[in-house]
Amino acid sequence: MVGSVEVDTLSEKFNGEVDLLEEFDPMAVVCEPLPPIVVDDGECVIGEAKTKTKTREIVLGRNVHTSCLEVTEPDANDELTGDKDAYMAGYPYNLDFDYGSLAQLQHFSINNLGDPFIESNYGVHSRQFEVGVLDWFARLWEIEKNDYWGYITNCGTEGNLHGILVGREVFPDGILYASRESHYSVFKAARMYRMECVKVGTLISGEIDCADFRAKLIPNMDKPAIINVNIGTTVKGAVDDLDLVIQTLEECGYSHDRFYIHCDGALFGLMMPFVKRAPKVTFKKPIGSVSVSGHKFVGCPMPCGVQITRIDHINALSRNVEYLASRDATIMGSRNGHAPIFLWYTLNKKGYKGFQKEVQKCLRNAHYLKDCMRDAGISAMLNELSSTVVFERPLDEEFVRRWQLACQGNIAHVVVMPNVTIEKLDDFLEELIQKRATWYQDEKVRSPCLSVDIGVENCACPLHK
Amino acid sequence: MVGSVEVDTLSEKFNGEVDLLEEFDPMAVVCEPLPPIVVDDGECVIGEAKTKTKTREIVLGRNVHTSCLEVTEPDANDELTGDKDAYMAGYPYNLDFDYGSLAQLQHFSINNLGDPFIESNYGVHSRQFEVGVLDWFARLWEIEKNDYWGYITNCGTEGNLHGILVGREVFPDGILYASRESHYSVFKAARMYRMECVKVGTLISGEIDCADFRAKLIPNMDKPAIINVNIGTTVKGAVDDLDLVIQTLEECGYSHDRFYIHCDGALFGLMMPFVKRAPKVTFKKPIGSVSVSGHKFVGCPMPCGVQITRIDHINALSRNVEYLASRDATIMGSRNGHAPIFLWYTLNKKGYKGFQKEVQKCLRNAHYLKDCMRDAGISAMLNELSSTVVFERPLDEEFVRRWQLACQGNIAHVVVMPNVTIEKLDDFLEELIQKRATWYQDEKVRSPCLSVDIGVENCACPLHK
Repeated sequence: MVGSVEVDTLSEKFNGEVDLLEEFDPMAVVCEPLPPIVVDDGECVIGEAKTKTKTREIVLGRNVHTSCLEVTEPDANDELTGDKDAYMAGYPYNLDFDYGSLAQLQHFSINNLGDPFIESNYGVHSRQFEVGVLDWFARLWEIEKNDYWGYITNCGTEGNLHGILVGREVFPDGILYASRESHYSVFKAARMYRMECVKVGTLISGEIDCADFRAKLIPNMDKPAIINVNIGTTVKGAVDDLDLVIQTLEECGYSHDRFYIHCDGALFGLMMPFVKRAPKVTFKKPIGSVSVSGHKFVGCPMPCGVQITRIDHINALSRNVEYLASRDATIMGSRNGHAPIFLWYTLNKKGYKGFQKEVQKCLRNAHYLKDCMRDAGISAMLNELSSTVVFERPLDEEFVRRWQLACQGNIAHVVVMPNVTIEKLDDFLEELIQKRATWYQDEKVRSPCLSVDIGVENCACPLHK
Repeated sequence: MVGSVEVDTLSEKFNGEVDLLEEFDPMAVVCEPLPPIVVDDGECVIGEAKTKTKTREIVLGRNVHTSCLEVTEPDANDELTGDKDAYMAGYPYNLDFDYGSLAQLQHFSINNLGDPFIESNYGVHSRQFEVGVLDWFARLWEIEKNDYWGYITNCGTEGNLHGILVGREVFPDGILYASRESHYSVFKAARMYRMECVKVGTLISGEIDCADFRAKLIPNMDKPAIINVNIGTTVKGAVDDLDLVIQTLEECGYSHDRFYIHCDGALFGLMMPFVKRAPKVTFKKPIGSVSVSGHKFVGCPMPCGVQITRIDHINALSRNVEYLASRDATIMGSRNGHAPIFLWYTLNKKGYKGFQKEVQKCLRNAHYLKDCMRDAGISAMLNELSSTVVFERPLDEEFVRRWQLACQGNIAHVVVMPNVTIEKLDDFLEELIQKRATWYQDEKVRSPCLSVDIGVENCACPLHK
């Protein structure tokens, strides 16, 4: 049994031997998390890029990395690798430990105006940090420095708005396809941009239903396709099968120059690369852009996100589009300059290995929570390789508010983040089980049936248990 | 002479009596800056609203103000009225003095999700502050609490994107009119939203040319008009004549239900209400929305802005629009929760009277700068009631960078902000004059002619001086 003191404590709580983690394979987490550096000639180099000192000119349409602050990995021989300040971890707010070093930043009005790769006269900016962070993500998603363009956004929504806008500019008459469990910002984008939008059905898991996708594609073959692929849906944490989406497009006769895929990474875009069995998000596949939220998994005191796309798309736009004469391909002109510094600091401190550890911890804890719920007779589902546990909506709204649960219809969910400990989960479970005993003491009040939402096999309602 | 020790110091510098401020009328600043509270029955109440304790239900489409934190005015009898920490003012960064009180905020991940007026389960937010700030601006722009909707944006661009989107939703086939000196985000919006867009010419001052506006309106009378009105253009600080724009529309036969005006307040949206002769920005006129940048005149360590529109527009949208089923009428879903706290804090500390004083100081210092330049034989222009001084572009890019000047073609500009002191202006002038003597010592190199940019009367080039 993959266990620890914490896990043993909880077995006692349930008065019996519960093999809580039987489904969880810790080796599912990628053990060589350091992504190779993709270089010009297509070859890969494993390790750091510190020896690359080639000088690059500042040219529109070429990325400037010479003056950026590279994110470095923590020392691999350090006992604390992956969390240089590990002893401080576990505080309720992920960024508590950053406060000491970064408090002075509030003195400054830091504004990253316009394109991160084009020099600006405004003096108080943090573009060096921004480009350092972007390079880190470009490496994670396997795109060469000179091949990508990106920026640090204000939130996940801005990433989606940008990715879909790039898609529309590439294919002005393209149809936007998105599963109905996509984030609402995707449908907002369609309306804002006056795009034709087709909603695609989902499986019980929350993933896009590629059979339905195929059925929706066929009558619209005359128009290019712009597809939003969810790397972790908001409610169920479902990861759309990127490979199957691409395969479906190909089978329907779409060549690579007739579709554009935007990957909405939200929370899981940063977790997935560290999970072995997950469909890999990489620019080696025919995708156009990836966005991810920065304030979620990385942790940052203000909402922010990262958006990466292919530089060819941005260059094509800048040749054609009047508004890019201003050389600003972002959605917002002024951008918060604090966020890049926080992100850079955290990436530096944790490194790829630190994230790997945190992903492992989150997945393990999420499995633990789901298993405990099922053992206690509570309907619950956990998508393979997700840290979002979906379960029956608590009857008491006060309970929902106090535990900060997000609800939709009959279901609630908990996203198991790095700061959610086994102790906290135990407290939560204990209270939930106690409360349920009172909510459902009268036989007339029954716990809801979730078979439609999470499948019969995950439902523990009176009918299905 | 309206003077001070500082002004006298500089007169000496120019070896003679220079009535530097002859054009500047300090009474041009409104002396009763406390905007009346607009109440339901249309009557106005001067003074504070603290006695209003009516409880309001939380209903979509009605604004919730009961739980918000009202911005209060500093004590009127206080010697330091208008700057409770006046002794700290004048530091290069406007917000230095906020640091002590607000430093602890960096501990928290503060996120204002979705509509500020609709309760959310997410616990760590600052909506009470946000609504307090919005109420302050609503009062400034004379719209009743129950009649407006708004939110704190990530920057001025988001305000423009939102205002123009609301206009388009009100008039789906409307044509967007904007002067060619409008901020580029206006043209970006037109492209993003797939709107027909007509550029209107400008006067030398940078204001919209209403004769050209009329000429552009006439052939398009069959379609409603959506107009971007600049309350301070980026380069010349020009304020479009809102009254003349409305008059032009009316004279061309546009009834009030056939046009939508978005006022891009950027910097001056907050200054204008305190200036007597300025065309007043108020919702008593037929305007649809106003946006302003928060990090400029108010000062805030990160970019932010305020967007206010009529609640009727938002309600109409929420009835019709699928994406508003999510009850989110903002552009970004997640919003930085720190900015509202900074804004609230500053508004509270300075109050309307504090802003009045700062506006007066900025206008006076801007006039001082322009007059000194003209006296030194440098081409320069200052729009009446603006604090943006436009002058000949310095020959030396290093000088431009060091003084953080923004340039366009032959012109440069300085925006005289509250933290720009006479001493700083004197230093700047001294260096500029010295450098010019070297740049133009050879007769073959001549200072540029700016007659096209700022008018013959403001040009001091060899031909026009």
